Amino acid sequence: MKRSVLGENELPRSWYNIAADLPEPLRPPLDPGTGKPIGPEQLAAIFPMPLLEQEMSAEREIAIPEPVLDVYAMWRPTPLIRAVRLEQHLGTPAKIFYKYEGASPPGSHKPNTAVAQAYYNKISGIERLATETGAGQWGSALAFACSLFDMALKVYMVRVSYEQKPYRRSLIQTWGGEIVPSPSPDTPAGRQVLEATPDSPGSLGIAISEAVQDAAHRDDTNYSLGSVLNHVLLHQTVIGLEAQRQFRDFGLEPDVVIGCVGGGSNFGGIALPYVREKIHGKPLRAIAVEPEACPSITRGHYHYDFGDTAQTTPLMAMHTLGHSFVPPGIHAGGLRYHGMAPLISHLVELDLVEPQAPAQLDCFAAAVTFARTEGVIPAPETAHAVQAAIAEAERCKREGSEETILFGFSGHGFFDMSAYDAYFAEKLTNYQLPEDALARAWEAIRELPKP
Amino acid sequence: MKRSVLGENELPRSWYNIAADLPEPLRPPLDPGTGKPIGPEQLAAIFPMPLLEQEMSAEREIAIPEPVLDVYAMWRPTPLIRAVRLEQHLGTPAKIFYKYEGASPPGSHKPNTAVAQAYYNKISGIERLATETGAGQWGSALAFACSLFDMALKVYMVRVSYEQKPYRRSLIQTWGGEIVPSPSPDTPAGRQVLEATPDSPGSLGIAISEAVQDAAHRDDTNYSLGSVLNHVLLHQTVIGLEAQRQFRDFGLEPDVVIGCVGGGSNFGGIALPYVREKIHGKPLRAIAVEPEACPSITRGHYHYDFGDTAQTTPLMAMHTLGHSFVPPGIHAGGLRYHGMAPLISHLVELDLVEPQAPAQLDCFAAAVTFARTEGVIPAPETAHAVQAAIAEAERCKREGSEETILFGFSGHGFFDMSAYDAYFAEKLTNYQLPEDALARAWEAIRELPKP
Repeated sequence: MKRSVLGENELPRSWYNIAADLPEPLRPPLDPGTGKPIGPEQLAAIFPMPLLEQEMSAEREIAIPEPVLDVYAMWRPTPLIRAVRLEQHLGTPAKIFYKYEGASPPGSHKPNTAVAQAYYNKISGIERLATETGAGQWGSALAFACSLFDMALKVYMVRVSYEQKPYRRSLIQTWGGEIVPSPSPDTPAGRQVLEATPDSPGSLGIAISEAVQDAAHRDDTNYSLGSVLNHVLLHQTVIGLEAQRQFRDFGLEPDVVIGCVGGGSNFGGIALPYVREKIHGKPLRAIAVEPEACPSITRGHYHYDFGDTAQTTPLMAMHTLGHSFVPPGIHAGGLRYHGMAPLISHLVELDLVEPQAPAQLDCFAAAVTFARTEGVIPAPETAHAVQAAIAEAERCKREGSEETILFGFSGHGFFDMSAYDAYFAEKLTNYQLPEDALARAWEAIRELPKP
Repeated sequence: MKRSVLGENELPRSWYNIAADLPEPLRPPLDPGTGKPIGPEQLAAIFPMPLLEQEMSAEREIAIPEPVLDVYAMWRPTPLIRAVRLEQHLGTPAKIFYKYEGASPPGSHKPNTAVAQAYYNKISGIERLATETGAGQWGSALAFACSLFDMALKVYMVRVSYEQKPYRRSLIQTWGGEIVPSPSPDTPAGRQVLEATPDSPGSLGIAISEAVQDAAHRDDTNYSLGSVLNHVLLHQTVIGLEAQRQFRDFGLEPDVVIGCVGGGSNFGGIALPYVREKIHGKPLRAIAVEPEACPSITRGHYHYDFGDTAQTTPLMAMHTLGHSFVPPGIHAGGLRYHGMAPLISHLVELDLVEPQAPAQLDCFAAAVTFARTEGVIPAPETAHAVQAAIAEAERCKREGSEETILFGFSGHGFFDMSAYDAYFAEKLTNYQLPEDALARAWEAIRELPKP
């Protein structure tokens, strides 16, 4: 057997909340004005109460509402596939599995939370959402979800990705969403950046500021975030929960669980149910793979920082390069974020998750190997996980170790073919951040509270 | 239940060959020189013997080789999905199902035969294939298949699609295939067209000539065709066979089976196993949907004609607009073919299949309705089937009829977003062929044999 598919009757009925199993509690978000923990009421202007309750919840299992399950059943459970041809190509004794989230209509893991967020906003009386998007995977997923729940949507898309990936824009429009490049003239935060840097490539930090301001000044509108927050990672745990069920079909359990990380939702989705096992004594490794060019865990600081550039969000304890940091325009736009989910950062600090930061060219080389053996073309973000999985399989070959490797295939690369074109034309390069750029960004946050 | 997924153990083990059930035998292909039926030995220069045997076979079931099943298992069985949200949107008492071939790595039904053809060529000692492609779905599927069997590939891509769909090119290159726009300077047929019409948009008929000439003049190379021929339709029957099995899970049987047709492989794949039931007395309708702008069944002649523009192929009895006909550059590039599979044409003549030819704008409107209700974005080719399915569901609403409608979702539209952009920008138009264009193309074939 090389592929486990499950019927909709085997969909997980609950999300897994790792807060219930943490050996040390997560540090709370702080009000930047008072330096005190922030309460749900302070966020109620832009988030619906059910999501704020999930954000703070300590319940281990949170039931997935029927209307959300009903939408999940359009493509979930997603397949768990053994990469037999890749194993043979590498000549490794390791078994390599990938959980294929590219099977969703928008082509990535993002609708797992987009659908839930649209649903909770809808039942809370909200008719319109505002959001940011990097590579466009999140924006298109939320456009998909909003079209199913008859909601309006405005997407602020990081300008460099808006230009690199025109067809994700088209996708958002086909599902009925409105989309503008960020920084945009539509918000105070966007106008401020445009005045200082008219040719700014944009960043997730800037786009978040714009979407938050949009939501804050309209009663009918809430803000929706595609990663970073606890409730977002919670919704993504369907991925790992399904994988656990599917590995039983194979009579195996993973020794290594790998996911790419930008804000942390994809990695959290596949890894958190396994980190639970690790907390309870199971020997396994969870590897979070970030880009060399935006290395928030491996080269950032664990510190309180703003989630956005314009300092509109609460302070969060996380690995950060500093909220003023604008990452270089690498093709894995979904990983271009200055910070890291507080939950993932916390797990790194507890030595439950290990970070890696491979170079862009190594990731594309791994992606092409994968495409030519397994047939599936990874998004540039996913390519980071592919690179790490291949590296682990090669280690297993050197060590003669028959480990089972699982990686999260977060999305397909059909909208990223221009990146592959650039790679084949040898127009892509690696990019290591200079020390002084990191030091400058750090200056902006050193006066903020320490965790 | 709204989605049937099956494990790889439920893959069909044989293809279905309708030749065994035809009430009248198919008319044979003719040698254009002698006017006599052509034998397999005359085609052995460009096709491997196992495929020629399948082309002529009268066996009802033809076993699928294990290595082909092994590749099919990467994505097959594909899901059969009930379009509940579309039904609700239309307010129809009909049940609408679609068989989702977009789940394959290249995103369409084409690899069902690409993998089989690559395999049979490989075991026959062939190291390189040459082929044509319209929209690129076939070329990318064969590139995928060749990468799995370590074979070289050259793709002649119809120029108008080459320019409309740059990322299907990238896909072919990522899988290691070589690709040129057709007409190309690489073959006598291409050079001839370029001399007469330097800005020719190309056509499948021209690209087929180029690929056939490429294969004929190289010993290591065979020709591979993505549609039209009996063995191609044979391989596609896995689609309909799976659907028959999956409808048992729903306790239903389709009353109407719909597929888009260009060369006929997609329609044949979903419909032939059902046409078998119809031949044996079951009351059901099989609807082949072609574009208004390239209406080979609805406005062409049933006549012997060449499969390609340069008259290099045998003569086939089929519905044809004439081999000199160059269709307008509509976005459903996969449906831009002057002829129709002899098998489908024969079934139309026997009143077992009914043709329809909707206008381009109606197809895009239907596709957007589908995307906004079911979440999945159809390729422009598939949009023709969506249009027909919606029209049937609306008829059921008028008649109060609770029919079950099945359509083949041949491929997703992720590489066709420029067409959606053009549609939203109101740059697309309908196109009805003028009578005199049809009459001119007909002149070129009227002296050929009559069926």
